[in-house]
Amino acid sequence: MRLDFSVAVHSLLYLDQNNDRRISSRELSEKLKVNSVMIRNILSLLHKNGYVKGNVGKNGGYQMILSLAQCNVGELYDLTIPPTISYARFITGKTSLLEEENETHETEIESNIAETLTDLFTLADQDYRAFYHQFTLADLKQDIEHHGYFQRKIDEQ
Amino acid sequence: MRLDFSVAVHSLLYLDQNNDRRISSRELSEKLKVNSVMIRNILSLLHKNGYVKGNVGKNGGYQMILSLAQCNVGELYDLTIPPTISYARFITGKTSLLEEENETHETEIESNIAETLTDLFTLADQDYRAFYHQFTLADLKQDIEHHGYFQRKIDEQ
Repeated sequence: MRLDFSVAVHSLLYLDQNNDRRISSRELSEKLKVNSVMIRNILSLLHKNGYVKGNVGKNGGYQMILSLAQCNVGELYDLTIPPTISYARFITGKTSLLEEENETHETEIESNIAETLTDLFTLADQDYRAFYHQFTLADLKQDIEHHGYFQRKIDEQ
Repeated sequence: MRLDFSVAVHSLLYLDQNNDRRISSRELSEKLKVNSVMIRNILSLLHKNGYVKGNVGKNGGYQMILSLAQCNVGELYDLTIPPTISYARFITGKTSLLEEENETHETEIESNIAETLTDLFTLADQDYRAFYHQFTLADLKQDIEHHGYFQRKIDEQ
């Protein structure tokens, strides 16, 4: 979910800014205005993946391990919003292998559109993720401090 | 919704292939294995936007006006899946203007992260849509006939 991504990004920026102490999930919950169960789930994920150290749990506290420049935005996106495994529910036509065996009147379009649309969606998603992979959290902080940084970077390309 | 996009694409390919006659929404419904209310909604949208002619409605029939090469995949994507108007529900921190006025202890991160994430999501979405705009339905038909066409086109870039 996209909110998970925002929570991960905001949490890491906050931990980085307060790196002289451990930050509780309660403090993050108040700052981000997100319930603390969600905070703990996301921080647990970041802990498992080597972004933060500390104790996970109700009375836990977290501290950043990496620098902002070491945190790739695309990697955080992939971690919090995994790619769609199957596009089947978005595709028209044939719905099962069983049906395929019984179907004799189908044209090339019906036989192949599922594969074609799956490829199109998959390639578009790879391209979308590559966009986020261009940036680190240091870039993101640049945009927070000087709004319009992302827009300028894209315009320069 | 992504299924709307698939229905639009599949319908236009089917109409193009059977352009010697008008196709009823019932026939499309059977071929695409999608309920006929959805077919009529999507075909009505395509009719309004100049892709097909014919009578919309329960006993309607449609015929393609454009060639496949004239149908841009990105335009069909934008038509069936309009861009997100607000990312507010995906963003952490401040939740209302009222709150902004009362808040005095907030740091630069909390003040500006909503704008920064909105920009990031908006730019990523523009990039995502640009991917689809590279192709027409003639390309899509190429992939149906020679699967792997999209993958090769991307690899060549």
